[in-house]
Amino acid sequence: MVAQMDKPKRDVKNLILDVDGVLTTGQFLYTKDGKFAKVFGPHDNDGIKMLSGLMNIQAISADRRGFDITQKRVSEDMKLKLDLVSEDERLEWFKKNFDLTETIYMGDGMHDVDIFAHVAYSIAPASAFYLAREKASFVTTHRAGEGAVAEACLHIKDKFFK
Amino acid sequence: MVAQMDKPKRDVKNLILDVDGVLTTGQFLYTKDGKFAKVFGPHDNDGIKMLSGLMNIQAISADRRGFDITQKRVSEDMKLKLDLVSEDERLEWFKKNFDLTETIYMGDGMHDVDIFAHVAYSIAPASAFYLAREKASFVTTHRAGEGAVAEACLHIKDKFFK
Amino acid sequence: MVAQMDKPKRDVKNLILDVDGVLTTGQFLYTKDGKFAKVFGPHDNDGIKMLSGLMNIQAISADRRGFDITQKRVSEDMKLKLDLVSEDERLEWFKKNFDLTETIYMGDGMHDVDIFAHVAYSIAPASAFYLAREKASFVTTHRAGEGAVAEACLHIKDKFFK
Amino acid sequence: MVAQMDKPKRDVKNLILDVDGVLTTGQFLYTKDGKFAKVFGPHDNDGIKMLSGLMNIQAISADRRGFDITQKRVSEDMKLKLDLVSEDERLEWFKKNFDLTETIYMGDGMHDVDIFAHVAYSIAPASAFYLAREKASFVTTHRAGEGAVAEACLHIKDKFFK
Repeated sequence: MVAQMDKPKRDVKNLILDVDGVLTTGQFLYTKDGKFAKVFGPHDNDGIKMLSGLMNIQAISADRRGFDITQKRVSEDMKLKLDLVSEDERLEWFKKNFDLTETIYMGDGMHDVDIFAHVAYSIAPASAFYLAREKASFVTTHRAGEGAVAEACLHIKDKFFK
Repeated sequence: MVAQMDKPKRDVKNLILDVDGVLTTGQFLYTKDGKFAKVFGPHDNDGIKMLSGLMNIQAISADRRGFDITQKRVSEDMKLKLDLVSEDERLEWFKKNFDLTETIYMGDGMHDVDIFAHVAYSIAPASAFYLAREKASFVTTHRAGEGAVAEACLHIKDKFFK
Repeated sequence: MVAQMDKPKRDVKNLILDVDGVLTTGQFLYTKDGKFAKVFGPHDNDGIKMLSGLMNIQAISADRRGFDITQKRVSEDMKLKLDLVSEDERLEWFKKNFDLTETIYMGDGMHDVDIFAHVAYSIAPASAFYLAREKASFVTTHRAGEGAVAEACLHIKDKFFK
Repeated sequence: MVAQMDKPKRDVKNLILDVDGVLTTGQFLYTKDGKFAKVFGPHDNDGIKMLSGLMNIQAISADRRGFDITQKRVSEDMKLKLDLVSEDERLEWFKKNFDLTETIYMGDGMHDVDIFAHVAYSIAPASAFYLAREKASFVTTHRAGEGAVAEACLHIKDKFFK
């Protein structure tokens, strides 16, 4: 664990956002043809735009089957860098690509807890799985798909850039 | 800010409704082909019809990509005047088109707070982003897409037209 | 108002269910082609089957544009009698077709309150518009689209058929 | 009822999951062409994978009309054994296929209560019909389609395999 207290606040440089359950409600609409749709929420794009001058913000998803859906919203419409990273490769991917002492991660699942233990600061939406809520540095009041990422962005700005 | 106390109640002449997060849940269903659907709720059309003899009621949306979806519900089915106004142009649009001392605005996002500061009265749904809820003159008990606009209409009738 | 206390409980013979906001969440999914889908919930069909030997149960909807969607679920799949009755004709339709002293109505909207005043017993889902919740004889703990009708059926059986 | 206290914990060998209202929100999206989509949630697949080395886990559904939708998610994507079993055949199916003293069942409906009375341990999601919640051995804090099955899996591991 990074000793966050000893570091100047400006050292937080990356915000990595999980997609499903963070930028979406986490739910998948299935039809008889398979995975059909995901539910993205309001406000999050506003929050990300507000913070994007201050930090590098990018997204990751472990959902291979729904990756074309995710790309439409996250890459094309929100213009965020997006990587497909499976859950077992995730910690290695974090370590290879970022200095984790200057990285914030927002996730919602049971496996995200492993990442939470290695980053400078961790955030979970109000609707996250209970283990993620228990271990996160900060839990938003908004649920995922209802403004959780926007609230996280304002919280980060307030905490690390003031 | 208008000194609302000094003015006769009948002076409130316009109700401007944001669409996403006010007339909808704010959520977007995405498929692999992009933005696919929005979720509109019950009761709101009943409330608007009840108030429409007393005030000018119209809608605005900043969602260019989903504007064809919005038009189907708001223009064609609800028969409301609807304008596409981006968030940075919004305050200018309000000032150009309305006497803000006689205008009520119902919005749900972080940027709507700027408009709230200039209108006679502001309303946020129970599900609005927390900053909008903090700054609104009135917060409905119903969430957006679950009757928030209908409740706002009854509240306006009760407060300004009795 | 019928003096319900003076009547034997077996006199309750009809249960009329509003569709939107009672058998559905009340929400409409719109695409660029217009009204696309409605959301029906679990348990309700089980509750209706359990009560159908004891009462005449039928459904009404005021939603002309979505009536083909409603028919698929309510007429074809649930096998309930279904009528399209606009909101201004609704009270007349009730009076013409039923003895209201032996009729229960379950509704969720502001106009349903007018019907509530004329029937033997009225029920609103937990998610109903606040005016309907205030005036109903009974409010379910389940929301519409989450078992409200099933709970209403068990409540009716318990209250009127024991 | 099995005398669970007298048995070693390792005797719990099967976990049977109802699909609608347990692995889904229980809701059906209907279009004018009929039943169109179901809503599956996050986390559940993670929980099932974690527990699958310890128990036999399989799924049942009574929804004939939506069975092709269910198969896409549960059989093809989650790789769970899945059977279509109507509600009146369900208790017989359980008795024929499993030793119920070593079987856990997770269900959400009024008819699932009959099964609950015959299995070693029963679980209901927070969003289950109230009768199922009243009778279950354990009620999750997460709602169905929001992580209820994942929470159940962790609860089972903690209670029976430690």
